[in-house]
Amino acid sequence: MQQDIITMVHGSGGSATSDLIQEVFASEFKNDTLDQMEDSAVVTGGSKIAVTTDSFVVTPPEYKGGDIGRLCICGTVNDLLMRGAVPKYITCGFILEEGVKLDLLKRVVHSMAETAREAGVQIVAGDTKVVNGSGEFYINTAGVGIVADDVDIKASNACDDDVIIVSGTMGDHHAAILSERMEIDTNVTSDNAPLVDIVRNLLSNNIKVHTLRDVTRGGLGTVLKELAKASGKTFYIEDEAIPVKKVVIDFCGLLGLDPIYMGNEGKLVAIVAKDDADKALDVIRNSKYGEDATVIGEVKNDNPGEVILKTRIGGKRSIDILQGEGLPRIC
Amino acid sequence: MQQDIITMVHGSGGSATSDLIQEVFASEFKNDTLDQMEDSAVVTGGSKIAVTTDSFVVTPPEYKGGDIGRLCICGTVNDLLMRGAVPKYITCGFILEEGVKLDLLKRVVHSMAETAREAGVQIVAGDTKVVNGSGEFYINTAGVGIVADDVDIKASNACDDDVIIVSGTMGDHHAAILSERMEIDTNVTSDNAPLVDIVRNLLSNNIKVHTLRDVTRGGLGTVLKELAKASGKTFYIEDEAIPVKKVVIDFCGLLGLDPIYMGNEGKLVAIVAKDDADKALDVIRNSKYGEDATVIGEVKNDNPGEVILKTRIGGKRSIDILQGEGLPRIC
Repeated sequence: MQQDIITMVHGSGGSATSDLIQEVFASEFKNDTLDQMEDSAVVTGGSKIAVTTDSFVVTPPEYKGGDIGRLCICGTVNDLLMRGAVPKYITCGFILEEGVKLDLLKRVVHSMAETAREAGVQIVAGDTKVVNGSGEFYINTAGVGIVADDVDIKASNACDDDVIIVSGTMGDHHAAILSERMEIDTNVTSDNAPLVDIVRNLLSNNIKVHTLRDVTRGGLGTVLKELAKASGKTFYIEDEAIPVKKVVIDFCGLLGLDPIYMGNEGKLVAIVAKDDADKALDVIRNSKYGEDATVIGEVKNDNPGEVILKTRIGGKRSIDILQGEGLPRIC
Repeated sequence: MQQDIITMVHGSGGSATSDLIQEVFASEFKNDTLDQMEDSAVVTGGSKIAVTTDSFVVTPPEYKGGDIGRLCICGTVNDLLMRGAVPKYITCGFILEEGVKLDLLKRVVHSMAETAREAGVQIVAGDTKVVNGSGEFYINTAGVGIVADDVDIKASNACDDDVIIVSGTMGDHHAAILSERMEIDTNVTSDNAPLVDIVRNLLSNNIKVHTLRDVTRGGLGTVLKELAKASGKTFYIEDEAIPVKKVVIDFCGLLGLDPIYMGNEGKLVAIVAKDDADKALDVIRNSKYGEDATVIGEVKNDNPGEVILKTRIGGKRSIDILQGEGLPRIC
């Protein structure tokens, strides 16, 4: 390709499209299945499979600690993991506005390939479209994983006296994106990471995991409220126990943001049986990306669907999902 | 929701996003799996699965004979069928530019739901993002199907003396979109359709199907050339045999277009063993959307990777894939 930007001809379905696919995507994502360039990939399945999708529109596309390429693989892999699946296959659809810089696209695609290798997934199918616009691009990923027959992890499974664990500090991704966008110089880096190791270790150690949920858009507050509603239980959370980095606390203080509603891209909430709590915490802390795991609360049933935050000064505050004011385009 | 257009707040991940999802998507796509609103859908799989993805950016989003909603389900279902899979699950990612009209979005979503029912697939996972822009929207769909253990249909499988069948007339979708865009008043309507019935009937009648490919962007010429290259065979095609509607021939004549490179969204090429040719043609013609099926050529091996078109006046012309001049945003 001679040009250094994407033009409408790259979306024609003809030889320019074919060149783009070969030079930018196929060379990075190379594997036996994708290389066949069929209408769909035929792969080994399992009797129970998990299926998910997500679109990524983050601005800016590259930021401290990651980029939209790493983000899209992590997001989809993590969504599969939250049902206890072993992530296996990823599809990706690129929507490129005219004017996308080819060198940026190549860096993002390289990052996707690297993150897919880290997460142990194969990119088995893809699609590219070109649209009018101003040089931005969007990536949609879908994922398929295999779920073992005896695994049943879902939002409604939380039980009385279960323990609520978060796998690490809150708000890092959100603060990193916002810093870039506002051109504030901070040390905060995005947490975007595939949580494969944490989930694999929880399952292989036979820990009674009832619910898993990655803490993304909407933040911890939104996720906990959704899980409390889905299970009909009451979640009691200790504000003081929620891990937040000093730099993120300072950043939030400066802008009047609440860390409990800040988005993350490499953190999960695990709700586990009380008698497995210590073991679960230990397993997560010894897994990649889980070193700051903390117990933040417990499950009761006195106020169905409620999340009650015990504040540092002894008060109680009911937590709802994020209202309309959330920051768009952080993931 | 009070507003009649999409605004950035619909993409915040908070309550406005949740309202949009409930009111526009969940109500139309309703099924037990989707209703769980989990990070991923856990569904029944199979030992061999097909996985595919496609993004849809068609302009205009509604046209004679269909809309982007029908198109995105058909496109993904057909890609699964081309490997002999039974299409089962669809995921959809919506990228909405600020300013999308809600009533248009609702019509498109309704059309997706109707087409999914026709094709026998469930929409099991979805995602919505909002971006800046001028009121356009894009849909990415991914699909999963189950492949029977004894089914092996792929591009490289074409054998000497196989017969090449197309399931109907060429160019209808492309001409319909172009008519709308150029505001030319024609009777041509898009062919967008799910080819479930054709493929199911071919397989259930034990026809020796070697290769299937839906004839989309790039047209019949591009598809045949790709299949000839993948199989290392020579395809001899009779120009006179290629079915094209009179209205499409006239339309192409007017604009100097070649029907062989016009895109379709409800047609396939089937390459079948010679001794099954009559039966295959009969089965396709008796299937929904296959009534105009025609044998257009045969497979030889004297010029590996070549597609040779025998013209009406007795000449021969080598067919290549569509070069850069194809029309973008027709699918």
